[in-house]
Amino acid sequence: MASMATFIAQTPYPHHSFPKKLHTHFAPTLKLSLRPVSTPKTRQRLRISSGLIEPDGGKLVELFVPESEKTEKKREAATLPRIKLSRIDLEWVHVISEGWSSPLTGFMRESEFLQTLHFNSLRLDDGSFVNMSVPIVLAIDDAQKRQIGESTRVALVDSDNNLIAILNDIEIYKHHKEERIARTWGTTAPGLPYVDEAITNAGNWLIGGDLEVMEPIRYNDGLDRFRLSPAELRDEFTKRNADAVFAFQLRNPVHNGHALLMTDTRRRLLEMGYKNPILLLHPLGGYTKADDVPLTWRMKQHEKVLEDGVLDPETTVVSIFPSPMHYAGPTEVQWHAKARINAGANFYIVGRDPAGMGHPIEKRDLYDADHGKKVLSMAPGLERLNILPFKVAAYDKTQGKMAFFEPSRAQDFIFISGTKMRTLARNKENPPEGFMCPGGWKVLVDYYDSLVPADSGKVPEAVPA
Amino acid sequence: MASMATFIAQTPYPHHSFPKKLHTHFAPTLKLSLRPVSTPKTRQRLRISSGLIEPDGGKLVELFVPESEKTEKKREAATLPRIKLSRIDLEWVHVISEGWSSPLTGFMRESEFLQTLHFNSLRLDDGSFVNMSVPIVLAIDDAQKRQIGESTRVALVDSDNNLIAILNDIEIYKHHKEERIARTWGTTAPGLPYVDEAITNAGNWLIGGDLEVMEPIRYNDGLDRFRLSPAELRDEFTKRNADAVFAFQLRNPVHNGHALLMTDTRRRLLEMGYKNPILLLHPLGGYTKADDVPLTWRMKQHEKVLEDGVLDPETTVVSIFPSPMHYAGPTEVQWHAKARINAGANFYIVGRDPAGMGHPIEKRDLYDADHGKKVLSMAPGLERLNILPFKVAAYDKTQGKMAFFEPSRAQDFIFISGTKMRTLARNKENPPEGFMCPGGWKVLVDYYDSLVPADSGKVPEAVPA
Repeated sequence: MASMATFIAQTPYPHHSFPKKLHTHFAPTLKLSLRPVSTPKTRQRLRISSGLIEPDGGKLVELFVPESEKTEKKREAATLPRIKLSRIDLEWVHVISEGWSSPLTGFMRESEFLQTLHFNSLRLDDGSFVNMSVPIVLAIDDAQKRQIGESTRVALVDSDNNLIAILNDIEIYKHHKEERIARTWGTTAPGLPYVDEAITNAGNWLIGGDLEVMEPIRYNDGLDRFRLSPAELRDEFTKRNADAVFAFQLRNPVHNGHALLMTDTRRRLLEMGYKNPILLLHPLGGYTKADDVPLTWRMKQHEKVLEDGVLDPETTVVSIFPSPMHYAGPTEVQWHAKARINAGANFYIVGRDPAGMGHPIEKRDLYDADHGKKVLSMAPGLERLNILPFKVAAYDKTQGKMAFFEPSRAQDFIFISGTKMRTLARNKENPPEGFMCPGGWKVLVDYYDSLVPADSGKVPEAVPA
Repeated sequence: MASMATFIAQTPYPHHSFPKKLHTHFAPTLKLSLRPVSTPKTRQRLRISSGLIEPDGGKLVELFVPESEKTEKKREAATLPRIKLSRIDLEWVHVISEGWSSPLTGFMRESEFLQTLHFNSLRLDDGSFVNMSVPIVLAIDDAQKRQIGESTRVALVDSDNNLIAILNDIEIYKHHKEERIARTWGTTAPGLPYVDEAITNAGNWLIGGDLEVMEPIRYNDGLDRFRLSPAELRDEFTKRNADAVFAFQLRNPVHNGHALLMTDTRRRLLEMGYKNPILLLHPLGGYTKADDVPLTWRMKQHEKVLEDGVLDPETTVVSIFPSPMHYAGPTEVQWHAKARINAGANFYIVGRDPAGMGHPIEKRDLYDADHGKKVLSMAPGLERLNILPFKVAAYDKTQGKMAFFEPSRAQDFIFISGTKMRTLARNKENPPEGFMCPGGWKVLVDYYDSLVPADSGKVPEAVPA
């Protein structure tokens, strides 16, 4: 379940002060994200950077209504049947609209849905394949279907009835939930978080079509400035003269084992002859299950890691990946990798059991820990992406820091479980020095501190690696 | 569930006599199948016929031990750990050994298993894809795994301990049953026939490797002469100067609606400019569920259909497809089509809900009736195959025979359900004249007659279409 085996020493962790700092280490990203929200974006603008990997389908999809057409689109939308979007639906509109799922131009029609379920890939007109492993679909119920009637377009609105987008040339088809779940997760066991949240009670129909999105999606949670689109990330990588971009997907706090891995990856890329490899540190920002550390806390933690100099801000871009989380293991890791191609990454770091979790009703992990990286290396449409499997980092007692595990001197390394780390943070104890930067650890302690009710020791399970 | 909507009139079916006839209408096939079993076959012999579609991977796999090496192989096998094959395992050895699953050269290793589960296709060394949608795997249990130990080869034996094959360069990996079932069937509901028969109680490990098969697989059931290998079928099609081969997969009795469809397909192919389209009428001969009509009865019925002149023996080859049946709908229909490419077919006829069945625990069909043909038309590796969707045949009251349904005069056509047909056959009643040739119908009546216990009306459910 843990995405990286973690070893730490049993020595006490020295106390550090945690001075409040500015977000200076996020500066390059921060600067970028201060662009006005109304920056004009054109639909399906062609973006091919000679230095960066091509987006899937050759051009990066962007689906925003040009400023000059907004008034007209609003007028049109007012006459259309309305579909209210859930939070997860909105996150998918975000994902599609910025081209993370290029070449998709909207919620999937049945042809795309079936190809995704059966082949984890879509065939393009030229006969080539792009990867597409998780269904990006919008469910409606019988009443909504009746309401739509013969209309060929619908308006998509948020919970406050604000117009978000128009869905054009719609196709309505059956939502075969059991089959969708079985083919996406490889199980139909009750208790899969995304299924419980977004499928079980969803409507029995799916509606596909082409999106026209009114404005870039914003959440007004103080983190929008970190939500760079693929186009913005590509601009940033180009500005930095990146000749390699290596993406690190995460949904957990960063410890020094991760940092070691990322630093070492850069070193290896330099050795391979790249002059300026840039790290895309890319926490997932959409729906996560209740016991994951929330995005706001994770972003605070990541910020501290950069402030403390564990990662080099000059060669690191921290940004938020807007996708919701499926916890669908080998199926989902393909989506995580494919989306990063569209953002310009040509190297992808993959660990043990990516996007995995415990089996919801059996005492075992849901997925074979090695299947994720194996499936990723074989996936249709990901041939252009260089897959970098994790090396296992461990706490090396002889060095007093995280290091790559060496089986020949296994006795020098120590494990710590996720449960152990959670317990430490909950009890405001410190892990061994060198496990995580003090600023980052403090954020984690503060998070659990904010949760613990006075009369209960029960806190959600955090997954530290 | 029915592979073709069936309509018949309510008029009584006239009685016919059913003279015993020779198998003369199978003659071309029969003649071929009389070749000595010991016909030398070489492993992975290159078979590219200029007139026929290329096998997957460019060459037809054949995995038989040359006569000159048999003594040595038997000697080697005697020293190896032994795995006893079930009937279904043996059917898969049959399938693999003759190249139906080309380019597979043995039971799947993990890489092939994962690609099959996730992508329904295998990537070849040149980057191209071949279709492969159902796992062809061999399960072993903990004790067998221990017994194999460090051996790199195992001997495969039948239930009487006769040596069937050697499996070389073996790889043993975990049998993740739930995931295999979910991703292959799109459900994990209890009661899937193949799962109950071959997976639930199978071992927790899978063993892959390269097969060397001692002899062509024979069942000594009087039907071996109809079990032509892909190579033999290709020879037959070449001998007949076929410039198009259209395959019809079936596991049920042939009625005149099917016959109309096949005859009409030939007519359309002639119109398209083909000079000599040959029909491969290709009943599935491996494992089927208990309530399907058994192979021996189906073969009798097919024989009568040819005898009665419903199909033209000059342009029809009847042969048995040795694969076991999964009842895995859109996933399995790809396997059915892919295997026929390897036998030389470049046209494949697909009906409603191919390889489908009722949901084991819900009152609905397991698969969307249209998904099979849609998935088939989109499947990676099947691009070279021409998919011919079924036209719906119906009993036309105005003509007193089966005809293609015309929605504009729907009132002229009549339906009959599978249950209705089964009831008629069980009660020794006749269907309307023109629904099925009398000889074929008599076989069906005889089959149900052989089943009905004196004190019970209960018979298995037959699926007539």
